[in-house]
This record gives sequence, structure tokens and C-alpha cells, in this order.
Amino acid sequence: MVTLVTGGAGFVGSHLVDQLIQAGHDVRVLDNFSSGRESFLSHHGDSVEIIEADLLDLDAVMNTMKNVDLVFHLAANPDIRLGTQVTDTDLKQGTVATYNVLEAMRVSGVSKIAFASSSVVYGEAKTMPTPENYGPLFPISLYGASKLASEALITSWVGTFDLQAWIFRFANIVGARGTHGVIFDFIHKLHKDKSCLEVLGNGLQEKSYMEVIDCAQAMLHVVNHTNEPINCFNLGTRDTCSVRRIAEIVLEESGCSDAEIQYTGGDRGWAGDVPKSMLDPERLYKLGFNPNHNSEEAIRHTARCLVNEIGQP
Amino acid sequence: MVTLVTGGAGFVGSHLVDQLIQAGHDVRVLDNFSSGRESFLSHHGDSVEIIEADLLDLDAVMNTMKNVDLVFHLAANPDIRLGTQVTDTDLKQGTVATYNVLEAMRVSGVSKIAFASSSVVYGEAKTMPTPENYGPLFPISLYGASKLASEALITSWVGTFDLQAWIFRFANIVGARGTHGVIFDFIHKLHKDKSCLEVLGNGLQEKSYMEVIDCAQAMLHVVNHTNEPINCFNLGTRDTCSVRRIAEIVLEESGCSDAEIQYTGGDRGWAGDVPKSMLDPERLYKLGFNPNHNSEEAIRHTARCLVNEIGQP
Repeated sequence: MVTLVTGGAGFVGSHLVDQLIQAGHDVRVLDNFSSGRESFLSHHGDSVEIIEADLLDLDAVMNTMKNVDLVFHLAANPDIRLGTQVTDTDLKQGTVATYNVLEAMRVSGVSKIAFASSSVVYGEAKTMPTPENYGPLFPISLYGASKLASEALITSWVGTFDLQAWIFRFANIVGARGTHGVIFDFIHKLHKDKSCLEVLGNGLQEKSYMEVIDCAQAMLHVVNHTNEPINCFNLGTRDTCSVRRIAEIVLEESGCSDAEIQYTGGDRGWAGDVPKSMLDPERLYKLGFNPNHNSEEAIRHTARCLVNEIGQP
Repeated sequence: MVTLVTGGAGFVGSHLVDQLIQAGHDVRVLDNFSSGRESFLSHHGDSVEIIEADLLDLDAVMNTMKNVDLVFHLAANPDIRLGTQVTDTDLKQGTVATYNVLEAMRVSGVSKIAFASSSVVYGEAKTMPTPENYGPLFPISLYGASKLASEALITSWVGTFDLQAWIFRFANIVGARGTHGVIFDFIHKLHKDKSCLEVLGNGLQEKSYMEVIDCAQAMLHVVNHTNEPINCFNLGTRDTCSVRRIAEIVLEESGCSDAEIQYTGGDRGWAGDVPKSMLDPERLYKLGFNPNHNSEEAIRHTARCLVNEIGQP
């Protein structure tokens, strides 16, 4: 079984490749190495085929589709905040890139796609925990808009061209090899000044977190255990963790427990940041999957891994 | 008050311009005249400013924003079926065009947008009548995907750049000046052969229809009576009409009552056609708006208008 992973050299992608190899897939990775790294895959040697190309190059994407049975489409701009400054990045690297993947699949006769969507498609949901059939879907970030647009492209390809799709709405995914996100940012800030940690917002922002290996295993579990034309699952844990608590854990794990925490104030980190998000993961759990970490365990584990990777402040 | 209408020379757009002029707006129309017609606006003489430009030309869109208070963004590919043949039309003329409108608004400091979305964002909904908070949103046509993608771009601009938005999910809009759709198609088919009418599908497809002047008045009514950051309303009637019944009405109104109706079979007209759709319009009605036509009245009125415009078969 040949499985193509777009963004396969990235944070989530490389962990997914680990799981796919372990499960016996023939894995092909398509990555432009804008945030992916060769070192995240180097332990596989020649057993992973790596193609360096950009998803905005449709011909190049077409060329990766030969004999592919299943596409995991994970490539995207990983920096949610960027949309506040540059407005066309998510449109291109999210929406248009997904169109190119779908179009290349259609032309090449590849019929199965699994897509990394996000909890941010729910925007500021009024129901928490938020189930998969929640509506209306009013994302508030440009990144969220591109994820919902990509979902819609995918379901339209299912309805029009008989694709089969798995849509995964991720909680905040954290873990080893992280290249973005709040824990990564905190450790880098402590490298500049270990006596003081600046936290965007009032620290009361509260979200679900999932450890990246749990996330990769959950994706495979769902693909192996469901068979509808469209299979949409929240991937997350049953609890949440506040930014204030994350700051405390990062300070503990980086040996900076004496640092002062300074809050910039306001209910969110930036315009387009969802202050509170809690996914309802019961569909996933009912399928027999149990993650190894809850939100706080995922964060502590990640802080340890990233302090190890980045270095002690 | 300067109001810009994209697609203002088109079917719905030109009727909206009529209502805006009547309500005292200064109206500017932006249209590429791909399906819009000058004759739809000619009765306004110089009182409507018409700019011929394409929404894919961002600089041109920027140039239309001077002094604008409110944008009605109606321009789009009007042919839902086209997505089965050409896959990038809706992406460009729907999603990317909406991005350009929003980006031009952001750069120019224009903060209010009303958008013509569609019932097709609901895909094959399991709840009927379908309310605005229905989920999940899995559109099955490429046109539907571009409408949902555009909604998501708009809500992300609200959340990130403080826009205010009205999102209108249209039932099937019918009426004078129609240039597409089932009634238009039936009359043209009868012009080729008035003894026989081919109907795509089994004729049991059943949808809500709204007369276009009702639709234009409903949009203005909602914009004038709501003031949330995001105001999302289904625009439709309380009933439905089947394709079989539409065929009968068109035959009656075109003087071809003796024609034989031939069904191509299957539950839908084409891949991506939603077989049954019924909007829940109660939010609109609660706001004090009552359309002048139900579905069947709208269809009969439209058949009369279009037989008059196109000519008796």
C-alpha cells in the first residue's frame, strides 16, 4: 500500500510517517521543507521516498501520485498568527494547495484522502465540548478559514468525483519536533531572558491539547476502522489546559521556576486567537482509541522534549 | 450612503440595485459582464455608476472602494453544474474573488459586507427544514465549496480585522432576467423541440424557491434590522417544489401542455446536485419579513417572465 504524506517532513507529518512505516505502508513524502526538516525523517534511511516540491506546483503534485492508494494531506502554513500580517498565505498554502492535491488525485485516479483540519474551524463555539456536527462554522482566523475551505473542497470532491475522505479536526497538537506554538515560543523567550516570561493575553485562554504520537496513532486508527464516504473526527483529549498553567509547567521543566510571568492582558493572544476551545472527542473514543496523555501530560512531556531539543535556557 | 454591488449587472444583482436605488443609496456596480448585462441596469440611466472590471484583478477592485460604506458581494460563477467539467472556476471566481473583495476592503478601510451564499453549503442535510446553525457543513458541489470557503474568509476577516458581515444563504432564486437554472433551461429546450421536454434525474428532486425581488428585499430588510458582527440568514420560502411540478408549470405557461416529459432517471440531475433541500426561513420571518410568493408562485411567475423574455416556444 503506497501512502503519500504531504508535509511529511513536518512536525505532525514526520510522526505520522513513523507510524505508517511501523504499520507496513510504503511511504512517499512530499514536502517543500519550508518548515519540515530532513532530520525528522533521517532515521528511516531509504525506506521513505522523499520528494521535494511545492503544492502550488500542480504538475509537481501530479508527478507524486503514481500508484498512490491513500493521501494524508498535512502540508500547510503552520503559523496561525501570520494571517494577521500577511493575508494570502493561508489562501495559497491552505486552500489552493488543497485544491491542487484534490485535482492531482482526480486526474490520477487516486481516491482516498485523509486531511489534517483543525478545531479552529469551530471559531468561538457556543457549545463545549464541541462535537463534529456543531454549527454554524464561523472561523475567526485566516488559518481557520483555509481549513474550512479545504474541508469543503474535499467534501465537494467526494460528492462530485466519488472520493473517500477522512477529515481530522485537531486539538492543539504538541510534542517532540515541535517547530511552532506556545511551548516552543515560551522556551525561546526564556533563552533570551530566563528571569521573565511574557505571556500574550491574560493567561486564561484554555484549550485542549493532544500529544503528537497520540494524534498520529489516532489518525491511523480512524482510517482503519471507518469506511463512510466522509469520515469526520475531532482528535483531542477530554480536558483542557490554560495558558497560565502551560507557563508554569514550562518554567518548571526548563529549570526557571523563579522567573516572573508577565501577562500582556486581554482575553486572547492576538486577533483571530480563539480564547477557549474544547473539542468533544467521544466519537474517537467510541471507536476504541485511547490517547496515552491528557492535555497537561501532553504539555509536560512536550516541554521536556523541547527543552531537550532546543537546550536548557 | 455609497453601496458597492459586485455582480450588480447580473440576475440577482440587478434586482438588488433596483431596491437600493429605491431606498436612496448611491449605487456603484462592479461587474465583468460575463453573465451580467447592461440592459438589466439601463433603466437607471446615469444614477448607477458602472465599473467594468474583474474581481480577479485586485488593483481594479481596490479602485472601486473609494467612499464605500457597504459592499454587497454577489459576483460568482452562476453555473453550479460547471464544476463537474471545469474544476478551478469556482475556486477562482468564488473563493479567490471573495478574498480580493475582502482584501480591498481591509486596505481601503471599508468595514461592512453582505454576501450571497447559498443553501448548497448544507450539502445533503439530514435536518429539514435546515436552520442556519446546522452542522456538519459538507457541500457536495464545487460551487458549494466556494460558497462555504467565502463565508469562512468573511468570518475570519470579522474576527481578525473587525469587519461586520451579513451572510445570506439563498434558496433557489428565480424570476425575471434569469440567465441560468431549471426554468430557463426548460424553456430553451422547448424552443428546440416543443413536443418533448427532457428532465435531468427522476423529477423528484425537491427544493425551496424564492422570487428574486423577494430575495433582494429580504437582503435589505435584514441589513437594516440586524447589527451583530456576523448576521447569517437563510433566505427562502416555507415550502418546496419538485422538478416534476416545475416541468408541468413551464409547459402550461409556455403553451406546450401537450409535450411529453422524459426523465433521464436517477435521484439527481448531475453529480453534485443536492436532490432535496428545504431551508428553514424562520429567522427571516421573525425579523418581520414576508415574501410575496411561495415556491410554486415564484416558479409560475418566473415561467411567465422568462417566456416573455425568451419568447414563446
